[in-house]
Amino acid sequence: SLDSIMDTKIKEALTGLEINPAPAKKISCTSIFNSGRLSSCPAGMVVTSCACGYGCGSWDIQGETTCQCQCSTIDWTTSRCCHLT
Amino acid sequence: SLDSIMDTKIKEALTGLEINPAPAKKISCTSIFNSGRLSSCPAGMVVTSCACGYGCGSWDIQGETTCQCQCSTIDWTTSRCCHLT
Amino acid sequence: SLDSIMDTKIKEALTGLEINPAPAKKISCTSIFNSGRLSSCPAGMVVTSCACGYGCGSWDIQGETTCQCQCSTIDWTTSRCCHLT
Repeated sequence: SLDSIMDTKIKEALTGLEINPAPAKKISCTSIFNSGRLSSCPAGMVVTSCACGYGCGSWDIQGETTCQCQCSTIDWTTSRCCHLT
Repeated sequence: SLDSIMDTKIKEALTGLEINPAPAKKISCTSIFNSGRLSSCPAGMVVTSCACGYGCGSWDIQGETTCQCQCSTIDWTTSRCCHLT
Repeated sequence: SLDSIMDTKIKEALTGLEINPAPAKKISCTSIFNSGRLSSCPAGMVVTSCACGYGCGSWDIQGETTCQCQCSTIDWTTSRCCHLT
């Protein structure tokens, strides 16, 4: 019938759309270790925290993507880097 | 008319779709405190940072979900854990 | 033909929907520096980490949005604050 033809056409059109193609996003993180007092995140990731050698908890973030440990003696710096995947 | 029947059918088909069902996601975080030098995030959450007792700022992340404080003496460890909700 | 009229109607209805209007979200972070042992994130942002003066790595988060550095002497506190944009 004309009615069922319409239904079929509409259904086909919608099936092709993949109405919800956006996958559920989640946070993914990685740690970047570097010797010295600086450590940078890869492009596209943000710094959520920094860790420092010699027990140091004083740090700041330079240019949005680079951890800088501030204590006078520092042998390593790790940036914690996250993005959505 | 046939025309208005078509319009109604199409409209009904689209109404049932809930075209934008994905709610606006946001980041939600919690802190997990533990005695000793290890603290793990719950399943489904990522570690964004760690805090340590005795003023220690040296830590690393084991297996993606566990904070490990590295200073020689450590009495507590807290992992900061986040996910999308 | 009736067939092509149906096709046109369906196509028009779908074009008006803007099926994927949700923009790709990403994490955006900022650091809030404050003198003293407390530093709060702006409304709508979460704390992912804290940094403290005097090399201190011992901190906790008060009320979900405020960093508190715990060492006995603290001259500054920075909260690392993130949200989705």
